[in-house]
Amino acid sequence: MRKIISILVRNHPGVLSHVAGLFTRRAYNIESIAAGETDDPAVTRITIVVSGDEAILEQVTKQLRKLIDVIKVQDLSYSTSITRELVLLTLFAPADRRQEIIHTTNIFGAQVVDIAEKTVTVEFVGNPRQINTVMKALAGFKVKEIARTGLVALPMESQLELHRNVL
Amino acid sequence: MRKIISILVRNHPGVLSHVAGLFTRRAYNIESIAAGETDDPAVTRITIVVSGDEAILEQVTKQLRKLIDVIKVQDLSYSTSITRELVLLTLFAPADRRQEIIHTTNIFGAQVVDIAEKTVTVEFVGNPRQINTVMKALAGFKVKEIARTGLVALPMESQLELHRNVL
Repeated sequence: MRKIISILVRNHPGVLSHVAGLFTRRAYNIESIAAGETDDPAVTRITIVVSGDEAILEQVTKQLRKLIDVIKVQDLSYSTSITRELVLLTLFAPADRRQEIIHTTNIFGAQVVDIAEKTVTVEFVGNPRQINTVMKALAGFKVKEIARTGLVALPMESQLELHRNVL
Repeated sequence: MRKIISILVRNHPGVLSHVAGLFTRRAYNIESIAAGETDDPAVTRITIVVSGDEAILEQVTKQLRKLIDVIKVQDLSYSTSITRELVLLTLFAPADRRQEIIHTTNIFGAQVVDIAEKTVTVEFVGNPRQINTVMKALAGFKVKEIARTGLVALPMESQLELHRNVL
């Protein structure tokens, strides 16, 4: 079972390490984590993608809510959320294959952000399915370095309205 | 002093919490953290933006290198790196001001990703300066929710080549 947990925390030293620790003490697998500031500089949003047993996850969520610096915990579903990740990817690109990378990048609406003697760096953004598609399309090139942000997500308000109207 | 630290780690439970703990035990301020998988599924890249005393940061970096699951630690400078962050932003948008958000979003190359009865959600990507510019341009609207990935960065190979050629 794969879940997106979105947590608002007060920016105190140690809070991130506490939150991550709650998952890993139960050997819960964190697939990605992204933490960035919010409109309130004293508050950070941590988005965690985890996979594992549903019952254990419920326990962890309960413990999260008890942490002093945790303001809010949301369990976001893929179907009613906007999910996005950003990927920076530096590929080894022999001169004769550089055009191929640029072409593939353009097809998928990705951006070439750097071209050097032996490498090309591209940037792309999308939901998990879109990211996979681009990664596959570029799989023929050797990766020099990759930096992924991990997933962030927000409720898709238009979908929630539809659900409310149906009920 | 603000620094970007990029760390390759083996995906063992607890590694993220250990890494974050090293910074926070010294009350070092973590501004953002982003951790995502790499091309090797057993390896995760953690990008941390920290600010604080340079000498303490050097000590923390040394301790990081000693952790069993840490493969590589890079100290990336803003001037020779590609830096990017992704922001999802849901704004309260009365019907008569919706066009204003859409217009501002278009000017900055951002994307409208959802429109609901009372809100508009936008997505944008950029370096820290660009993100600040868009945030300022949209500051007149009330934020419902925001999710930022935190910064990711890779060395800008073309810049490194220039530096090598100059030396």
